[in-house]
Amino acid sequence: MNASEDEIIAWFESQSKLSAAEFPIGIGDDMAEIQWGEGTSVFVTTDMLLDGVHFELGKATLKQAGYKAMAVSLSDCAAMATVPVAAVVSVALPKGFGEGELKQLHKGITSAGDKLGCKLVGGDITSWHDEQPFAISVTMLSKAKGNKAVRRSGAKVGDVICVTGSLGGSRFGRHLEFEPRVKEATRLAQMVSVNSMIDISDGLSSDLNRICKASKVGAIINAEQIPISDEAKKSENPLGAALNDGEDFELLFTLSEKKCEKLMKAWDGTVPITRIGKITDSKKVEIKAADGKVSDLKPDGYDHLK
Amino acid sequence: MNASEDEIIAWFESQSKLSAAEFPIGIGDDMAEIQWGEGTSVFVTTDMLLDGVHFELGKATLKQAGYKAMAVSLSDCAAMATVPVAAVVSVALPKGFGEGELKQLHKGITSAGDKLGCKLVGGDITSWHDEQPFAISVTMLSKAKGNKAVRRSGAKVGDVICVTGSLGGSRFGRHLEFEPRVKEATRLAQMVSVNSMIDISDGLSSDLNRICKASKVGAIINAEQIPISDEAKKSENPLGAALNDGEDFELLFTLSEKKCEKLMKAWDGTVPITRIGKITDSKKVEIKAADGKVSDLKPDGYDHLK
Repeated sequence: MNASEDEIIAWFESQSKLSAAEFPIGIGDDMAEIQWGEGTSVFVTTDMLLDGVHFELGKATLKQAGYKAMAVSLSDCAAMATVPVAAVVSVALPKGFGEGELKQLHKGITSAGDKLGCKLVGGDITSWHDEQPFAISVTMLSKAKGNKAVRRSGAKVGDVICVTGSLGGSRFGRHLEFEPRVKEATRLAQMVSVNSMIDISDGLSSDLNRICKASKVGAIINAEQIPISDEAKKSENPLGAALNDGEDFELLFTLSEKKCEKLMKAWDGTVPITRIGKITDSKKVEIKAADGKVSDLKPDGYDHLK
Repeated sequence: MNASEDEIIAWFESQSKLSAAEFPIGIGDDMAEIQWGEGTSVFVTTDMLLDGVHFELGKATLKQAGYKAMAVSLSDCAAMATVPVAAVVSVALPKGFGEGELKQLHKGITSAGDKLGCKLVGGDITSWHDEQPFAISVTMLSKAKGNKAVRRSGAKVGDVICVTGSLGGSRFGRHLEFEPRVKEATRLAQMVSVNSMIDISDGLSSDLNRICKASKVGAIINAEQIPISDEAKKSENPLGAALNDGEDFELLFTLSEKKCEKLMKAWDGTVPITRIGKITDSKKVEIKAADGKVSDLKPDGYDHLK
């Protein structure tokens, strides 16, 4: 593919001509927002996960695949600081998959959803005619409750950039069992006004670039401040893993210096929050190394079309 | 697979434990219903369509595949007599699929949705790592407007059974270009009180059995009254095609004798409505042949798990 995933999505967005009154958030954010009734919105996200790409059946169980498929969409709800309500799931089954496999999958789906109050309300089961691989698509509906939804596009010059948890090395196993930051997201959005947020699905480098592009700002982060996971520390290039591995499903968000101070004081710390940099007016996304050298931070995370 | 699609769905439903106040319609109907705000519900359906199963790329274009994927979900909205509002689409692309392919697909998706006011508001694009086939999943949200949603489970003994259009032979091409009966469904539900409805996706035999099972009633239809499509008439077994081919995406509904008479008088007839039988208290689903012989009408339509 000659175009990147982000370029294709930008083209889809340019074609969409959605009325802002009916669809306050359209294509290009973590979820779309649909005005549903007086003062009520429906937020919606969809994700497709494939055997051999997002998990490998055999190494991973179907329960883990079902869990991950739900958790990825739950993480989109977290990225907007919305509360998941219901999910529908469609699957493409390899020939020969039986009742037992579907029940395992169901266990994974509900174990992810139930914890966060998100119900499985419908679905569609189809089978390949040949030995084609398993695919699962989850669509999730959520609500804003007690706080406004947080978009990618609200970052302001001078904002502090923060992340939850630690980054990198998710592919060594964590990507199958991560905890979507739904409760943390709504809690922090209720404590302070958060200007922009995204979940780190494709890697800090890619997802920070997305925030900056959507917000028309630049950023500089400090390599030394990035919380590197224990798994990533064991790899050849820990910083590279933390920047580009993806599938961390941690929150990346920005807020004013003042709000950040308030948050840091009040935050309970079960899931740590770390300051990693600042939003700038430079239009460039940069990283400052330990030796003080500043270089461009290219979006080198996962691209589904490359 | 030892269990049928309907058996598996019944198991999923039995596990779901949804509160009826929050989720008035759960797993097992054409759409789920979620209570969203005061007096407002969100209806949601999801469908997965696979290359080699629901269409064959090469014979069908990507534009047709995109159209069909949307039309199948639009037909679910019709089955409930609800009005489609928005859709999200996730795709699994074969390696090597490019921008051009995605733009073709987009054309098909929007050409189906735009006609009925249903907007594409989001999606997810993923790629297989190998030469795996194309898959597309559509999730659609709809609203009840000016009429109550119509369920599968409301058929009453004595109801007349009706269908729109004509049945059978869709696989000769119509399945790629059919018109979902969205406007017809809401119009008829606004004209009279419809007791039960479904769209014929897997075949009249299977879908009538579904209405009867959900409504805990029986039915008898008259073979001579079934409107057989021109394509089906050319096949070896026209009646069999009309009963079991599936993918007609016509409406199958039941209503009282009196309401049926009122409807027949007032209906404009652009899309014909035909009476084909009666709901009975026999608990059996039967068909009366031209010679008067009555036999069981087994659900011999398409089963995605057989």
